[in-house]
Amino acid sequence: MRRKPNPDQRRRELCDTAIRLLADDGVKGVSHLKVDRKAGVPDGTTSFYFRTRSALLQAVAVRVSELDLKDLIAATRAQTPAGLTADEPSGLATLVMRTATGARLIRTKARYELALQAGRDPLLDEALRSYGDRFRALIVDVVLRLQDKPDRALADRQAYVVMMFISGVMQAFASGDRSIRSAAELDALISGIVAGVGSSFALR
Amino acid sequence: MRRKPNPDQRRRELCDTAIRLLADDGVKGVSHLKVDRKAGVPDGTTSFYFRTRSALLQAVAVRVSELDLKDLIAATRAQTPAGLTADEPSGLATLVMRTATGARLIRTKARYELALQAGRDPLLDEALRSYGDRFRALIVDVVLRLQDKPDRALADRQAYVVMMFISGVMQAFASGDRSIRSAAELDALISGIVAGVGSSFALR
Repeated sequence: MRRKPNPDQRRRELCDTAIRLLADDGVKGVSHLKVDRKAGVPDGTTSFYFRTRSALLQAVAVRVSELDLKDLIAATRAQTPAGLTADEPSGLATLVMRTATGARLIRTKARYELALQAGRDPLLDEALRSYGDRFRALIVDVVLRLQDKPDRALADRQAYVVMMFISGVMQAFASGDRSIRSAAELDALISGIVAGVGSSFALR
Repeated sequence: MRRKPNPDQRRRELCDTAIRLLADDGVKGVSHLKVDRKAGVPDGTTSFYFRTRSALLQAVAVRVSELDLKDLIAATRAQTPAGLTADEPSGLATLVMRTATGARLIRTKARYELALQAGRDPLLDEALRSYGDRFRALIVDVVLRLQDKPDRALADRQAYVVMMFISGVMQAFASGDRSIRSAAELDALISGIVAGVGSSFALR
């Protein structure tokens, strides 16, 4: 028998169980009792830690976002800009490719379930949205390193386009699409997008 | 009292009701009985036309895809390439902007619910996937018109990136994001993406 976990650890474990349920069965697959049973804890445990279903989903959104943020910070820190200029694929592209398999694919699917549910739950929406700016800031840093001449306003726009593209790719991954075969290929596309959006707006 | 509709018309009406339920309440909001009640038809009508829940969702996927395809054909036919070269926004950009409001937003939300559910339902996945190639072909045509020198292999790749970007934007619209304010702005981004991916791969 493992020792009884502390409350923070227990909350994280219950959220991780809910992430798997979300990925497998969608929002309808998540209830306090289903999390209890899947986690192998006594009935009532999940509702002790998270009083309402919305509170549970908000906690799951925070857990997913914190894990994603940790991944993205690690992937974009102290990293060569890559793409057209480096021999190794960028940390960003490598990370996006990893969202197509294993535990990260489960998290990707859970994230899209939460995003759709957020349209019906303002508090869940707020929980997800509070991380949006932090993700965007990290992508802006990546884009700034790809620019020849740093331009912050342009980088914001380029980062938005890169984020929408990556979001579409991850959504396609979650649906089984495998059109992009390597991080190097993805890097080339990201570099192309950044350069193209740069030229397009420089012309205006 | 309206006259009793013919079977095809009845099927379409039930699918349209299911689209609204999907958008409002997600996949869990769709059952034969809920569609009956929401459509104001006698209990059992929906299960008479669609025996299983999967059959109902497949029919809804076909309905959503047919409506989207009709919109996309109208938007991309006999249309100037637009973006950097035309004064009017392109049909494609205008259509994407329209997915952010009204009946098309309802359909956008329903489409993402179906896409997630498709990961758990191979027949639903097949129903959605069968339209993928037709959407892609229309976007390839748009991209070919943006190329200086027609290059089909390159157009396939550019079209993929444009589709992933548009998918990300529509998903963001469905979550309430309104970062892109006009079809002209969207056109500039699409043109930039096409040009940038073109240059990026020409360099390799």
